[in-house]
Parts: sequence; structure tokens; C-alpha cells
Amino acid sequence: MKVISLETIIPNFLKQRAFLTPNRNALVFENKTWSFAQLFEKAKDYAQTISSLGIKQEDTVALLMKNRPSTVFIIHALQQLRVKAVFLNHRLTPSEMTFQLKDSQAKLLISDDDFKHILNEIHPLYDSLPLLTFKELESLPKKDIEVVKEYMLSDICSIMYTSGTTGNPKGVLQTFGNHWWSAVGSALNLGIRDDDAWLCTVPIFHISGLSILMRSVIYGIPVYLMEQFNETKVNTLLQTGDITIMSVVGAMLQRMVSSLNEQGYHSKFRCMLLGGGPAPRPLLEACAEKGIPVFQSYGMTETSSQIVTLAPEDSLKKLGSAGKPLFPSELKIMSEGKVNKPFEPGEIVVKGPNVTIGYLNRPEANQNSFCEGWLKTGDIGYVDEEGYLFVMDRRSDLIISGGENIYPAEIEEVLLAHPNVEEAGVTGIKDEVWGQVPIGFVVLNHSVSEEELISFCRKKLAKYKIPKKLYKVESLPRNASNKLLRRRLIEIIPKDMEI
Amino acid sequence: MKVISLETIIPNFLKQRAFLTPNRNALVFENKTWSFAQLFEKAKDYAQTISSLGIKQEDTVALLMKNRPSTVFIIHALQQLRVKAVFLNHRLTPSEMTFQLKDSQAKLLISDDDFKHILNEIHPLYDSLPLLTFKELESLPKKDIEVVKEYMLSDICSIMYTSGTTGNPKGVLQTFGNHWWSAVGSALNLGIRDDDAWLCTVPIFHISGLSILMRSVIYGIPVYLMEQFNETKVNTLLQTGDITIMSVVGAMLQRMVSSLNEQGYHSKFRCMLLGGGPAPRPLLEACAEKGIPVFQSYGMTETSSQIVTLAPEDSLKKLGSAGKPLFPSELKIMSEGKVNKPFEPGEIVVKGPNVTIGYLNRPEANQNSFCEGWLKTGDIGYVDEEGYLFVMDRRSDLIISGGENIYPAEIEEVLLAHPNVEEAGVTGIKDEVWGQVPIGFVVLNHSVSEEELISFCRKKLAKYKIPKKLYKVESLPRNASNKLLRRRLIEIIPKDMEI
Repeated sequence: MKVISLETIIPNFLKQRAFLTPNRNALVFENKTWSFAQLFEKAKDYAQTISSLGIKQEDTVALLMKNRPSTVFIIHALQQLRVKAVFLNHRLTPSEMTFQLKDSQAKLLISDDDFKHILNEIHPLYDSLPLLTFKELESLPKKDIEVVKEYMLSDICSIMYTSGTTGNPKGVLQTFGNHWWSAVGSALNLGIRDDDAWLCTVPIFHISGLSILMRSVIYGIPVYLMEQFNETKVNTLLQTGDITIMSVVGAMLQRMVSSLNEQGYHSKFRCMLLGGGPAPRPLLEACAEKGIPVFQSYGMTETSSQIVTLAPEDSLKKLGSAGKPLFPSELKIMSEGKVNKPFEPGEIVVKGPNVTIGYLNRPEANQNSFCEGWLKTGDIGYVDEEGYLFVMDRRSDLIISGGENIYPAEIEEVLLAHPNVEEAGVTGIKDEVWGQVPIGFVVLNHSVSEEELISFCRKKLAKYKIPKKLYKVESLPRNASNKLLRRRLIEIIPKDMEI
Repeated sequence: MKVISLETIIPNFLKQRAFLTPNRNALVFENKTWSFAQLFEKAKDYAQTISSLGIKQEDTVALLMKNRPSTVFIIHALQQLRVKAVFLNHRLTPSEMTFQLKDSQAKLLISDDDFKHILNEIHPLYDSLPLLTFKELESLPKKDIEVVKEYMLSDICSIMYTSGTTGNPKGVLQTFGNHWWSAVGSALNLGIRDDDAWLCTVPIFHISGLSILMRSVIYGIPVYLMEQFNETKVNTLLQTGDITIMSVVGAMLQRMVSSLNEQGYHSKFRCMLLGGGPAPRPLLEACAEKGIPVFQSYGMTETSSQIVTLAPEDSLKKLGSAGKPLFPSELKIMSEGKVNKPFEPGEIVVKGPNVTIGYLNRPEANQNSFCEGWLKTGDIGYVDEEGYLFVMDRRSDLIISGGENIYPAEIEEVLLAHPNVEEAGVTGIKDEVWGQVPIGFVVLNHSVSEEELISFCRKKLAKYKIPKKLYKVESLPRNASNKLLRRRLIEIIPKDMEI
């Protein structure tokens, strides 16, 4: 018998796609469209330019770029060379960026033209690193190169930094295989149709955005790219029939639903993929009422996007659940080293070929987070008797009050059920008696007193879960993908602005 | 960094499917339907029975079974135990079967109840092998077992014997990964829709049939199983809208098209997947005319079914082509160790994670057939300037006449273009002058003289390709999946029955 190679090899994704279906649309941005053949040409062009700087296979290049076609070209250019891409969040401070640049040993940083001022701030902090805006890159000479023919699925494609509760951010290694299996797992759940088109308004520098680019090439479907999320623009686009799938987080969906007219979305729009944390029940109910096909999901940078998604037939029956694992993946709920029974909350532990091979340069974190192929997510949830996952909260957000566990999302859900509350965030503060107590922050659309909201909560929540204080604020702290940052709530307590 | 495991692990396919979508239909046979939950229960039941015989992981069990639900249950039962299945073609002689049973070191042979007479013939040839009919198996006690939780993609799932031009048949090893990648590659080309249902009238003991069972579980769609192909029954079924995809070979499709009424197929029927050798152009044209969505494909036991398929958008533009490789696969055309240019016929050489890891117990064949991950298929074809594959013939069928290569399929295509010809087969016979000359066999639907047919050929073929003789016959020799057996044509020359 022939020696079995355990390593799976498949063709260079974009090259193969451009060969198989060159004329299908790959990318649509504003009024411009690129086919897969054109995208491949662009990627090769920029690969030649990047090569002229001496960048080669296995090197790492950092990107500080917005949701623009140039970003898509550069990402694919790096993949043509099998150069790893590090994605920088442009909301970071220059010193935070410098940490990631040094930690990942990036050989080059490419930025959008309008981030020149950020490059100027990074330079004094890391003066040996070559920095280039996209325009500067374009003016470079080209070096004649051959694009890579194939990938091993264990080759590293991208690195994205995530913050834990303490310590420096960790670089999550995402292999070509992680992206491949993520795309395939999603396809086996959501299906693939020849008229599919995925709207990307979430940041490409997050896995939610990058995973859309990867699926586009693997499935052979177009990405409709938007530089920024705008609910009016998006609602209009979803009424045309051009879009069949969109990725959102709760806050985006809330804004879309609030401004959606009676016409609703086009019948071709078949999937609102909702990630980024537990979704409040009132929002899900509003979507069900308006006929919006919401697929709740659960995932993270470490799982290369969704790993658990609610299957089509269950979207109404199991409202509020994130669903079951994608076909190639598994999950279990654990407490103190044992697998929990249904309905017992515990840590969500996941496994699958879409799960990262580990964190860069972090042997200790890898030791702590991985066990026999399973990743301990640090998130809290339970499964019901049929195995549906209900995500309760991020562990780091857990409020422990008088020995009782309090999950902020549960309280937020109640607050959001009040008709005058547009957004809600809950966190814990220190308390001499109870250890911690919950406090809440609300964005209102109509005036309402703190007392009324508290008494509204009393009807639905056990006593220890009632927020001890409610603050009216203009907006809640969110990250670039609009995920609520509960840890930052404490910083926005208004000095004298109680409800 | 965590140690990278190069081996991909995914959950037990049927167990995971039954967990994810228990209530979806898995199997429909005559008037009975089984859900995935029910199919999993059946599989576990029979796994317990088979375990009671001492069969365990990594063992091999042979099956001599027709297209019936019991066969599906047993196949999945073996997969629950990670026991390899050897599929016997019931048209083989008992001594041919015995060769495969011994070569594969099967520990047990399970047959349909109506094959008891075959078991009685095998017994004296191999008296140490336990033989059981399905009914006998059912009466056995059960052993309490746990089904396997996960598969490594390199685990062997099935073994199917194929004949080369010379020597004993070779057992093709098909891993769980081969089946997985085959299913995924097909999905990325054909799409997956939530109303999909695949009709299986091709034998399960061939890869064409088994691959439908594997896709069913991986996609979560039902298999409609038929014990035997019958064009009238199939045509009626394809008009109901219950079926969206069907696998056929040319001869089946020919009979379906001939008996199809004006109503045509239901609009939900979206893919007639055509394999089993080059299809004659007139048949493809007739299908195009009748609005039948034919997807030509090319594949073999060694590639775990299709490896090259014509994409939807090209089905008319490239009529007669088998298409381009599936996304995870590659192909090249080679002659004398070099890659050929477009339009230069040569050997078709393929690569991909759906390609077998090798032949069982055949180091020499493995040495000859595989080279750096590429499989030499022995088939002849060319690619056009865009990379579309045109399969010309099986190498073993090649007729060499006066130094010129003659591909039987080319001549058959011309014969089939004559309105009075229903089926055609061509092979070579020895000739003192030319080495070989082609002769033809035709099944007619209306009378026509040999002279008229020969003169019809003269208009379309170079002189050396004109059959030297044409025989009128009642039927052509075909294998169980209806593939024309050109090597057997010579045996059916009628003694005094020329046209």
C-alpha cells in the first residue's frame, strides 16, 4: 500500500476558483464589480509588488485597512505568496498596534492611504519596520513571480489578535484548513445556491468579515462589500434581491429592524447570520414578526467564525438558542473537569477542524486553553435536552452576587423588552455586602423613569438580579464589530446623569 | 505553539447527522420513509448484531446485497463500528467473489436473502468463511456496544474491486476522507438546497450508488432508493417534484429520454448527473432540447465518484465536455512523462483528497498508478484552451489501426446520430494488414441496412475509422451500472445475423 499522507493538500483557493468559474462575480463595491478572473489578476499584480520588497513564503505582513476593494486585493495577494496576514484593528492605539506588530514579527505594515497619520505614530515606536500606504505600495516595481499552486491545510493563512480578561492580546493562528472547514461547515448547514451573494459590512479585520471573503472564493459567490455599516443603505440593498445572506451582530440588527419599512426584505434574502454574543429575545421576536430569517450563531476568532448555528428548521422553535455545532464540529459543557447534564450551565468547550491550532508565542495560554483537541472558550452556556446551545455570557462578564451567578445578558434582555429602551448593557460593581451587584446602562428612545424600569425588571427577574442602579446614556461602548464591551461600561458612568 | 495534528478528525457521520437534524428524511424506498434518527437506530441495532459475531474495529465484512433498505442499514451499521465494507457485485461468478473475499480478508459475508444459492456455491470454495443471509443475521443476539464517536479521515471505510486490462481485480481503498471530500467537492459545484433529494437507481455496490448514501448523510438530504432502474417508473417520479438530483449513465438516460412524454420533468429537478463514460453528442443534444439539466461528469472507483463535472453555467456551452475538476481536485493530460498542451490527447492524470490512498495488497499497481499524489487513470482525453476536459476513451478500449489511434466512442457517437440506431458499441478486431480494425454493434429501433449506416459514417469519419463490419444485436453487454463493456462485444458476434 502506498504511504498515506496525513496532510491534505488542495489547490490555491483563488487560483482554482478563477480557473473553474472565471466569469462569476467575486466582489461588488459601490458601483464596481470584479469577476473571479479579475480578482485573481489583481491579487497576482499586488503579489508581484509585495515580492519586490523581498517578502516571501512563510513571512508575515500586517494590514491596517478598511473594508475596501484594495484590502481584498492585498489579502488575496498575500495568499498567492503564502504570506501570513496579521489584521490590525484600526481602533487600537499605536502602542497596542506595535505590540501586535512585534509579537507577530511582521516584516511590513500596509495601511490605507488615510491611515498615514497612524503610520507616523507607529514609526517612532518601531522604527525598523517598513511602513507603506496602499498608494506607496502601488508605485513600487513588480517582481516576476509564480503564485503558489497548492496549500497544505495546516499552512497558516491569517493571524488575528484577541484579548482575554488579563494580559496582552494573543495572536490566533488561522490555517487555510481552518478557513476551509469553517466555510464547508457553514455550507452544510445553510446550503449553497447559485444565486447566493453575501453582504459584508462587518470589519474584514475581524473573523466575521474575513470569513466572508474566504467563503466567497470557496463557494464561488460574490461579496457585496460596504466600507461602513449603515442601516438605511443596508435595508434598501436587502430589498433589491441582490443579497441572499448577511452577517450581523445584535446592535446592527436592532438598528436595521427599527428603521425597516413595511415592505420587508426581498424573498431571495434567506439568511441573517447573527453572531457576536447572545441576542436579546425581544429582538429575535421582532425579527420573527417581520419575517426576517435570523440564524443565531456562536463563534469566535479561535473557531474561524461560527461553530454553532441554528439550523433552518429550528429558527423559530428554538428562538434564543445558538443552535447545534456545524457538521464537522463538536461541543460540550463542562464544570470542574466534568461534562455537564442538559440545562446545567458551565464552560462551553468546542472541537473541530475549524478551531485554531493555537496562539502565537503563547505556550502557557495554549496549555491552558487546549485539551486533547478541545478548546476551552471561557464562555458560559448550557445545552437543552436535544443538544441546542444557549449561550449565557462571556465568562469574564459573569457577576457573582452573594454566591449567586448573574449573567448580564439575562438582565439586558429584560430591559430591552421595555418599549422605551433601545439598547441596554449590564455589568457588576463591587459591593461590601454582596461582593458584586449589577448595574445597568440604557439608551432610550422615549423618556422613562428609573423607577418604572426597575419595577419592570422586578416582574421578570429574581430579586438579586435587579440592577441596583440604572444610567441613561447616549451610546454604549462597542468594538469595531459592534459587540457590546461590558467591561468598559463602568468607565461611562455619568457623573450626575442618572435617569 | 500546540503540536499540530496533521490528521483531521470529524464526528461519526451518521451519528452527527442524526443529532443535528434527526427528523429530516434520510431514506425513501417504495412507500416507506426513515428519518435520520430512525436510520441511526437501525444502524445501531445491526451494529449490535454484527458485534455479537466478534466483528470489531478495523475488521472487514463483505456485502452481497441489492439496492434495498437493509443494505443501507448494514452499511451504516459497519460504519458505526468502523468496520470496513467490501462490496461484491452480484453478477460475478462465485469463484470471482471468492477471490475478493480472500484478498480482502473479509471476516464475514452478509447477503440478501435471495442470494442464499450464491452463498451455497461460495461455501465449498471458502469453507472457513462465515456466511449469513440478512434474515439469519437478524435472528442473532445483540451485543451491547458503543458506536464510534469520531473518524479520522484516513480511516478506511469501504473497499471496491475494479478490473484493469489484465490480472486480478484490485481492491480500491476508500477512506472516510475520500467520501467526505468527494461529497464536499460535489456540493461546491452543484450547490446544496434544503429541498434536495437524490434518486439512487445505480447499484450501491458501485461507487456511483455508495457515494449517494454518503452524500445523503453529509448533506442531510434523503436518498430515494430503487431496487432496479426502470425508465417509466423513474420518469414518473421525476415529474412529481420529489427528486432534485439523479445519477445516471448514458444508457439509462437514453432509455429515459426515449420514453419521456411531452410534459418533461418537474421544475424542481435540477441535476441529471451523467457519469460512466463519454456520452454521445446526440443524446446530450436531445436532453438539451427537452430541457433536461444534464451535468456530464468523469470519475471512477479510485476517485470515489465524480472528480470532473461540468458546472451549471457551462452545460450548454461545452456540450460533450466532462467539465473541470471539482474544487479540491486537479487534473492534467500527460504523454510520455510530459504535460500535454490543450487539444493534445493523452492520459488523464488526477489528484485530490477524494482520490484513493491506493489498492489493497498491490504494491506494484500502486507503484505504477501513483506518482507524487497523482493517479494515472489509464483513460484518454484532452483539455481545451480553457481547461475543460473531453474524455475520449478508456485506454484499454483504444483501437490502433495502421498506427492511427481510434477511439470507439467517436464512432459510436456517429452511429447513434442515425435516427434508426438506439444503442451502439464499437471495438477492435485483429487484422493482418492494419493490426486492428474497428467493428460495430447496433441496437435498432427501425430497420436500416448495413450499407446505409456505413455510408452515413463515411460522411462524418475519416476512412480508417469506418467500421469494417456492423452487427445488428438485441442488446449490448453492460455492467451492473449499465456501462458499456466494449471488451465483451467480441463475444456477441452473431453467427449468421449480419445486418
